Amino acid sequence: MQGASFVTDEKKDRVTVEINNRTYTIVGDEESSSHVRLVASLVDQKMKEIQGTNRHLDTANLAVLTALNTMNDYLKLKEDYATLLGSMKRKEDK
Amino acid sequence: MQGASFVTDEKKDRVTVEINNRTYTIVGDEESSSHVRLVASLVDQKMKEIQGTNRHLDTANLAVLTALNTMNDYLKLKEDYATLLGSMKRKEDK
Repeated sequence: MQGASFVTDEKKDRVTVEINNRTYTIVGDEESSSHVRLVASLVDQKMKEIQGTNRHLDTANLAVLTALNTMNDYLKLKEDYATLLGSMKRKEDK
Repeated sequence: MQGASFVTDEKKDRVTVEINNRTYTIVGDEESSSHVRLVASLVDQKMKEIQGTNRHLDTANLAVLTALNTMNDYLKLKEDYATLLGSMKRKEDK
């Protein structure tokens, strides 16, 4: 979804998803529509979780906080990946 | 940052960061302030990249698209992690 964008007039594959009660039309240039729907449902779920404990947030702030939380998860997983790779290499060196 | 939130009156550690020219006060209950700043700078960078190719987006839509892109990156990394774990287990079984 690196090249994904909100569009109204392009001819590429479009997927309409609902995130936090708003409808978005997403164009993916690499993923299938089922993958776009999966990603959107995970973002929707995370936004709803965050909204549950931050009722006063508007959509923009809620979405920024969702992006921050997802980026945090990404960095943790990246560390886990590096740790796993490291332990794999140590085993190979033995 | 699972429990991170935008607050104005809590007594926990607060970090002020700038994302897409807006200031946010973030409360992390597990991470250090330098980690919060790193996560925020990565989100800021991604938002600016996406804005570069989607000039008409408002902050809310831009932030949702940033969350979608980050979630997509997360899922890809999760697949890579599973693949690495699988190949590690296959080697152990030999």
